[in-house]
Amino acid sequence: VRLISLADIRRARRRIAKVALKTPLLPLKNGPRPHVFVKCENLQVAGAFKIRGAFNKIASLPRGTKGVVAHSSGNHAQAVALAARMRRLPAVVVMLDQSVPHKVALTRARGAKIIFGGRTSLAIAARAKREALARGYALVPSFDDPAVVAGQGTVGLEILEQLPELRSVVVQVGGGGLASGIATAIKSLRRNVKVFVVEPKGAPKLSVSLRRGEVVVLPKTETVADGLKTLSVCELTLAHIRKYADGLAQVTDREIMAAARHLLVHEKLVVEPSGAAGLAAIMAGKLKLPRGPAVAVLSGGNADIKAILNYR
Amino acid sequence: VRLISLADIRRARRRIAKVALKTPLLPLKNGPRPHVFVKCENLQVAGAFKIRGAFNKIASLPRGTKGVVAHSSGNHAQAVALAARMRRLPAVVVMLDQSVPHKVALTRARGAKIIFGGRTSLAIAARAKREALARGYALVPSFDDPAVVAGQGTVGLEILEQLPELRSVVVQVGGGGLASGIATAIKSLRRNVKVFVVEPKGAPKLSVSLRRGEVVVLPKTETVADGLKTLSVCELTLAHIRKYADGLAQVTDREIMAAARHLLVHEKLVVEPSGAAGLAAIMAGKLKLPRGPAVAVLSGGNADIKAILNYR
Repeated sequence: VRLISLADIRRARRRIAKVALKTPLLPLKNGPRPHVFVKCENLQVAGAFKIRGAFNKIASLPRGTKGVVAHSSGNHAQAVALAARMRRLPAVVVMLDQSVPHKVALTRARGAKIIFGGRTSLAIAARAKREALARGYALVPSFDDPAVVAGQGTVGLEILEQLPELRSVVVQVGGGGLASGIATAIKSLRRNVKVFVVEPKGAPKLSVSLRRGEVVVLPKTETVADGLKTLSVCELTLAHIRKYADGLAQVTDREIMAAARHLLVHEKLVVEPSGAAGLAAIMAGKLKLPRGPAVAVLSGGNADIKAILNYR
Repeated sequence: VRLISLADIRRARRRIAKVALKTPLLPLKNGPRPHVFVKCENLQVAGAFKIRGAFNKIASLPRGTKGVVAHSSGNHAQAVALAARMRRLPAVVVMLDQSVPHKVALTRARGAKIIFGGRTSLAIAARAKREALARGYALVPSFDDPAVVAGQGTVGLEILEQLPELRSVVVQVGGGGLASGIATAIKSLRRNVKVFVVEPKGAPKLSVSLRRGEVVVLPKTETVADGLKTLSVCELTLAHIRKYADGLAQVTDREIMAAARHLLVHEKLVVEPSGAAGLAAIMAGKLKLPRGPAVAVLSGGNADIKAILNYR
């Protein structure tokens, strides 16, 4: 597969400049060790980094595109709905039958047409493909697309500007789009900055795939971090992570929730469990970080706050 | 009384530069009207703007000062403890007998000696004075001090840098130190930017004092915003607010909690009720804001999150 380049990410940056926020990079005030910073994509438009990739993809579709289709029951759904509306394109989002009503409502409120496409991620993916074909609409994948990965990579450019002296970045992996984009940006500009990836113990698709040397689709995953439940990475993201990542850690649900709770209570930031997994790895001492500033990417904020406060 | 000047605030800015964060200024993503921004002092060191004034005061004490004393059961307590530790001075904080154990522990953890000085704010103020005298320590007031007001004014300088095109600023009043400092900074540099002050309906010390033309001490105040419960402003802060403020609004507990909830659920920010009162006035339509960007100052984040989620 062809990897994305720094030029792709820079182009994405220009495209999304008026739409996505340059989110704050903050020092942890009560952190596990000195010099841990967080990149606050939980404060991004629509509450997650996803708007970057979705908007970059939609903005790079050929003229004459009639509409877009996506499948997601999470943050990608809202991002596509919003990005499509900004480009004045109709959007169809295929969601799981059992999607949380609240998330369905938010996606609909951003102007997308919702289709309930079945009870599994495979079912909604297949339905999305059929819808795209039938309507002549373009698919907006949540990670398996160079334009999406390039959009997410803009997070890496911002981190480098905001903290030039950083020594390491830690990012969690769902499908791997965010990690691939960030790693490409960082390693293209600063080879000696370490990039670490983190997955939940109950959703180890990345470590399994790295070990086998090819994309492995897990039969089942189980984690409190619903955004990282994805059954597999893809060839595109596996290739980036293989080339760029310096290490991988696994975190338990308990570690993830402790990090989310720490962020909420002590750092005053609402972060969803998926968004706290990278910090969880740092807090649990699971990574051998180089001395000096480390950045954990808080990828999203669409959390059930009571669940975080009440966990265990 | 002698008002503080822009030069005082600029001097404070240099003093606190290594201690206080330049906090993010963020657009509200799901706000009540377009172009409302929030200045995130909830993300400040120790969770509130208070470190600015406390550190500026302590850093400007004469050489040879042996220690500091403050009285507070809230954010000022933690700020003084932290600022004193940074200057390697012993700190004594006099707190209410009935202070929340959690806040006592946080203040003690920052290295202060805690004295329980009685059940009323008058009692702890008197006790703090006696302690300062007996020990030869300096008092660090929470608002009635030019160095404290100048420190809080650094928030105004940052807002002007972060959003030069702003047209109005909205800030809540407890003792009035934050409002006085911000108003001085803003009006000294941009006379045509409007400054609005907000108080809880149940703690109307500012409007009463403005009406009478002198500082009035209320017999009692009652509001969910405990940081704004203060029984009176002081001559120093009343003089600044009188000179600079363009308008005043009152907000109810319900309006305050609606704003705090909005920030938590939709903007992913933990803000204490006191810190949300200014935004509450905007959301409830209680201010005649000029067209164009408006900034609400989120003054603190030390909130009981469950109380915000469960309110009514």
